[in-house]
Amino acid sequence: MSYYPASLLKLIKHLSKLPGIGEKTAERLAMHILRAPFKDAESLSGSILELKTKARLCSRCFALSDDELCGVCANPERDHRQLCVVEQPAEMVAVEKSGSFRGCYHILQGVLSPIEGIGPENIRIQELVDRISAENIREVILATSVTVEGDATASYIAERLEGMSVRVTRIASGVPIGGDLKYVDQMTMRRAMETRYAISS
Amino acid sequence: MSYYPASLLKLIKHLSKLPGIGEKTAERLAMHILRAPFKDAESLSGSILELKTKARLCSRCFALSDDELCGVCANPERDHRQLCVVEQPAEMVAVEKSGSFRGCYHILQGVLSPIEGIGPENIRIQELVDRISAENIREVILATSVTVEGDATASYIAERLEGMSVRVTRIASGVPIGGDLKYVDQMTMRRAMETRYAISS
Repeated sequence: MSYYPASLLKLIKHLSKLPGIGEKTAERLAMHILRAPFKDAESLSGSILELKTKARLCSRCFALSDDELCGVCANPERDHRQLCVVEQPAEMVAVEKSGSFRGCYHILQGVLSPIEGIGPENIRIQELVDRISAENIREVILATSVTVEGDATASYIAERLEGMSVRVTRIASGVPIGGDLKYVDQMTMRRAMETRYAISS
Repeated sequence: MSYYPASLLKLIKHLSKLPGIGEKTAERLAMHILRAPFKDAESLSGSILELKTKARLCSRCFALSDDELCGVCANPERDHRQLCVVEQPAEMVAVEKSGSFRGCYHILQGVLSPIEGIGPENIRIQELVDRISAENIREVILATSVTVEGDATASYIAERLEGMSVRVTRIASGVPIGGDLKYVDQMTMRRAMETRYAISS
């Protein structure tokens, strides 16, 4: 690609390392940046460095944060005695977007996975146990994914918390809203039957 | 999106201004950059600024270049008496990729378009005329797109060059390689008939 100047080739190379960005897209993005006002390119460039220097994990719940404590932990209007345990920041975002939770979080930074060699000591389980007594937590909602690893992680944590004076719950699993029973997979159907609940006494 | 730190939101905002990058993709890219090694993010950030400060137009042919002259103009092995006239750098790239041309270029930086108010004085036509005498050019190949605007621009340039001692040619237009006549559009078919050439004497 000798028909492009070196500076353009360099940006194309760096952009095409991003996930889902092939060489063609990287070329298009680089040409756009080339044509864009200098100020816009400067802002983009600056915000990449700013993110890398500023963003870190909340010292309490391990969510992404620019400060010592994240927005949720620092918010006095949230219920600080109720913890929702999730795998990663993306799952915390999913819970927040649903608007169904006003407590705080604990981000494990992973799930137990013997295949990948991830044991209890590799994710933030000890920190969760420590928080429960230190912060006088009332309820722990296990909101790990409904997968083999997520379920196993939830079970492990539930066991670890046995005997502590805290209510431990697991998010419900079953047929999704709008789910036509014809198209629901067998595992989901089975889980929905097993965890059915009484609607009248 | 209060669940994301400000630095992350800022990068998502800037990324989603890029063409073809929606908010979801911008979020995914920003999360990737967040997880990537600091050095990679620094390189990406730096190469954006480098492109904006270094890249400019070649002073002779108006191709993209990091230097006063682009790689083609600075190459003594290219034929400097043969010019291929294209609309934009992307078209120059298409010609280069075909490997069918060893001369130099002249990038018009646009096409004539009365609707968009682009006249001969808005694109680099005068510079082309000046080059032809100054550089003792032998042939000018008009390689603007085969569109109404591209054809009109080629015709206009051909007229402007009348009387100058230079050969003026236009790239051929017709049925593309692999093109099944059944599926060729009428305009292309008509052009292919009109510009047919003799294969025997």
